[in-house]
Amino acid sequence: MKLFPQIYKIEITSHHKSIIAREKEILADKIQEAGIPLNSYCNKKGLCGKCMVEIVKGELPPLSEKEAYFLKKKKLGPRYRLACLYGIKGNLEIRIPEESLIQEMLILTTGIRETLSLNPAVKKYFLKLKKPEIKLPLSLIELVEKELGKKVLITDLGLLKDLPRLVEKSNFQLTIALKDGREIIAIEEGDTAQRAFGLAIDIGTTTLVTEVVDIISGESLGTATSKNGQAKYGADVVSRISFAYLKPENLERLNEAVLQSLNEMIANLLWKKGIKESEIYEVAIAGNTSMNHFFLGIPVESLAVAPFYSVFTHLPQLRAGSLGLKINQNARVYISPNIQSFVGGDISAGLVASGFEAKEGNFLYIDLGTNGEIVLKKKHKFLATSTAAGPAFEGMNISCGMLALSGAIYKAEFKKRLVLKTINEAPPLGICGTGLIDLIAILIEQGKISPKGNISHKEKKVWLAKNIFIDQKDVRELQLAVAAIRCGIRLILKRSKLRLKDLDGILIAGAFGNYLNIENSMKIGLLPSLDANKITFIGNASLAGARAFLLSPEIRKRAENLVRKIEFFSPAADPLFQEYFIDSLELKPYDS
Amino acid sequence: MKLFPQIYKIEITSHHKSIIAREKEILADKIQEAGIPLNSYCNKKGLCGKCMVEIVKGELPPLSEKEAYFLKKKKLGPRYRLACLYGIKGNLEIRIPEESLIQEMLILTTGIRETLSLNPAVKKYFLKLKKPEIKLPLSLIELVEKELGKKVLITDLGLLKDLPRLVEKSNFQLTIALKDGREIIAIEEGDTAQRAFGLAIDIGTTTLVTEVVDIISGESLGTATSKNGQAKYGADVVSRISFAYLKPENLERLNEAVLQSLNEMIANLLWKKGIKESEIYEVAIAGNTSMNHFFLGIPVESLAVAPFYSVFTHLPQLRAGSLGLKINQNARVYISPNIQSFVGGDISAGLVASGFEAKEGNFLYIDLGTNGEIVLKKKHKFLATSTAAGPAFEGMNISCGMLALSGAIYKAEFKKRLVLKTINEAPPLGICGTGLIDLIAILIEQGKISPKGNISHKEKKVWLAKNIFIDQKDVRELQLAVAAIRCGIRLILKRSKLRLKDLDGILIAGAFGNYLNIENSMKIGLLPSLDANKITFIGNASLAGARAFLLSPEIRKRAENLVRKIEFFSPAADPLFQEYFIDSLELKPYDS
Repeated sequence: MKLFPQIYKIEITSHHKSIIAREKEILADKIQEAGIPLNSYCNKKGLCGKCMVEIVKGELPPLSEKEAYFLKKKKLGPRYRLACLYGIKGNLEIRIPEESLIQEMLILTTGIRETLSLNPAVKKYFLKLKKPEIKLPLSLIELVEKELGKKVLITDLGLLKDLPRLVEKSNFQLTIALKDGREIIAIEEGDTAQRAFGLAIDIGTTTLVTEVVDIISGESLGTATSKNGQAKYGADVVSRISFAYLKPENLERLNEAVLQSLNEMIANLLWKKGIKESEIYEVAIAGNTSMNHFFLGIPVESLAVAPFYSVFTHLPQLRAGSLGLKINQNARVYISPNIQSFVGGDISAGLVASGFEAKEGNFLYIDLGTNGEIVLKKKHKFLATSTAAGPAFEGMNISCGMLALSGAIYKAEFKKRLVLKTINEAPPLGICGTGLIDLIAILIEQGKISPKGNISHKEKKVWLAKNIFIDQKDVRELQLAVAAIRCGIRLILKRSKLRLKDLDGILIAGAFGNYLNIENSMKIGLLPSLDANKITFIGNASLAGARAFLLSPEIRKRAENLVRKIEFFSPAADPLFQEYFIDSLELKPYDS
Repeated sequence: MKLFPQIYKIEITSHHKSIIAREKEILADKIQEAGIPLNSYCNKKGLCGKCMVEIVKGELPPLSEKEAYFLKKKKLGPRYRLACLYGIKGNLEIRIPEESLIQEMLILTTGIRETLSLNPAVKKYFLKLKKPEIKLPLSLIELVEKELGKKVLITDLGLLKDLPRLVEKSNFQLTIALKDGREIIAIEEGDTAQRAFGLAIDIGTTTLVTEVVDIISGESLGTATSKNGQAKYGADVVSRISFAYLKPENLERLNEAVLQSLNEMIANLLWKKGIKESEIYEVAIAGNTSMNHFFLGIPVESLAVAPFYSVFTHLPQLRAGSLGLKINQNARVYISPNIQSFVGGDISAGLVASGFEAKEGNFLYIDLGTNGEIVLKKKHKFLATSTAAGPAFEGMNISCGMLALSGAIYKAEFKKRLVLKTINEAPPLGICGTGLIDLIAILIEQGKISPKGNISHKEKKVWLAKNIFIDQKDVRELQLAVAAIRCGIRLILKRSKLRLKDLDGILIAGAFGNYLNIENSMKIGLLPSLDANKITFIGNASLAGARAFLLSPEIRKRAENLVRKIEFFSPAADPLFQEYFIDSLELKPYDS
């Protein structure tokens, strides 16, 4: 018996590091302790094969059955071993391939560079079950538990009903999808451990965006955008709540409308990416309070009258099957927590994704959607409000308006003549929100529209291309939207006893993407005339938040904690509202 | 500022106890520390009103809103206060009424007197919600959480959809049913906190028994017995598995048959007791492995062929709605854990309920059902086996047989002439299992049947009453059943290297109730001829176990731990089986 364990040296050539380890310590632990982000997807159970390292010099233990399987599958040389199964017995020289490292991920591709460590709630494992023996005929679930090395939970009886057939067909070789390391939500034939996907969904009042994400690598595989089918029952939140209020069936109609839009968009996106519906195991949804109530089919009458309360702020994850989403019926759907009746989960998602909550100083977060939500951070205090901007920023309720899709005029410049840019350089089909802002700014500068919003031409129309024009009503729509935001900004600053110049920065989020022209936005008074360096466009931060929720339960916790700290006020209840709003209707710059 | 807290004296006149307490300590804590089983159903949150004590002398704090509510509701005098809300400020003299104490409960009314502390998984609370205010319009769920003093979980969207209507109708006065102190499984209008019921169900191969239990008081309110509707597809487990094996639809038929029997029995029982289906919040089910697979609709093919494995042994609680039980759709259904493919949850329930697991010495547990399960405890080791007795013990497959229901001949004696006793003293309708055993024993003694089972009368029939007889086939049925049990007992003892006289006791369980005549059972060799004091009839221990599961999650844990410790052997695979079985066919006493 040795009194002191032997000490060995481990050279990690790939990382130019040298570490020491004691007899019997596990190689994976030592590598991680050295600060190298070795992948331990299966929590070092030898199940996922993601921590393969090359043993360049030193003891090479015999291949375990599982290692042999992964070596063959990944086409690795004979000197590769799983670091999580490797007990140290002597000096080593190892090389860690790039594929065995966790890839750091940015939450937002633009904006704040916070990295996210990948830890999805659902993970998949390939299991070769030991067949039951007559001496001790374990049940199928016990065989699964034995292979996984822990107890599991099954709440969907359907999985148990299918299990015997699957086991027989696959000769006891199964892949299971495990939620929170405990609950089996899918059982599949053979090895499908590499195919696990999730959806991040932004349910906007006007626009829906879905992003499909590989929840093993964290990679985004593509997005799709579509209109929210509820628009036919009202352009904004208030008119939809009123519609739901009329009779009970209307709530169902609103619920069905958004579900149909979502299911069509999802089916399309998955088909394009070659992903099966059953391969979607998780969904994270960001939407405002009304939108997530409608999505779940929960009554919203109480949002229509004072004291304007909702049914829930935060919910546990729900089964996709109980919601009508056409994906794996056992997929879990996470709803981003609402802040308040009128500041919803889209904002909490955006605040977390943008790192807003952790910023030092005084900051403003503005989400330019059909609802214009504004959050102010003054040192450690958060104040939020919500303004009814209407769908103009998303190109809706505009004569020739459209969503920011192929063919939309998204940018306009005047260089001797008016130059219009369309998405994908397609022939112009209409004007989206950012294009409208550019155009109005240019037309005011040229005197074709007055700051009060009157079109000077007697036809009260400005033609831009064949069949595409802006008319007087369109200008009014934008004017109201701009005034709502500007009035909201001024009220929230007033309440917080801050001036514009006290702000250290403004984050602008919105589903319209990154096309918003800052100079034009200032010219028409949508944004205050501050130092442009203080203004950051962060794109669709709600969607980015939903993606972060999908990949990291820690980020969910962060949002759930944040929402409790945010105070809310209703702008319409503020005595200054009327005065500020009328004052904000003029399309001109402001800096105080 | 006082450096040392003041010490006070509390006289508990009702219990002739005197205790001391420090300033600000909570009265309920001190009472419980003194060993008095004060009810703390709501974990001392002031929600349930069950820990009312009379403050005979001493400081009487003003009534809280909740206390006022409970005083009025329970018609208590003005000096009653909730002990869990009472902070001690001076010397006291108190009286604790009987209603404020937890009633100790016996798990089995016969047999082992182990007490069970009542702690049902589902508890109900009446809540008067504070209405939302415009300044801080909390969501409805947050209002509930505020009143409960903790976070809740809701997985049934239906509850959220109904919530706004209920809140409005009840003017914010709701009763919620909370599972595991966390998940809301029912929301009801007004104060229904005193109505919470559960079902303990024994799913036997031949007989179904349901007991309805008040899960607040622990009181049993009544039982119902019916045939298992699956019997038309086969009298025993093996024939039903074979039936299911023929084609997939047959599994559905078996599943529907038992569900229909159960739902009819439950509806009847609840109607008689004046309980609504929606007031059943929990169910505990004890059944053998095949029965619980059939009940859940899970394939059993693997139980039909070697190595005879099942799909599950232990399951989490399932929603009643997903199983087809016509009770509250959110009620949770607990399935007693299976020990092995052929020793199921009925036995684990019985073992726990009878205290068998905790006995000192060598004990045998025998369940006389359609399957005859036998468990031997030799010091700390458990060995189990299962024998195919057939339904004779339950009066089935017998020409004039019937379940132990009103009109069944359950007892026979020869006092100069044959005296037959029927259940409820009703006119005889048939013979149940215990009656059959008595009758055969008497007929052998009288030489009308030989120990080899031949009826001497040339008609090969013995008439007992008008239309009621025993024929040759009936004797054979019982003979096979007796031989199965006897052979099982001998094999299990042989394997454990024990002799009959080494046994410290035998527990006999069975759905036939407590009518089994021990002397007659020994005469025909169903039970070994041991000192009668060593034999204890414990009645339907499976049902008693199910009731215990209903009232105490701790007992569930005990069963789940026990099942892992029990080894199993198949009697048919034992080389001695053939010899022992043939030897056991003779209806005569045995003592070695």
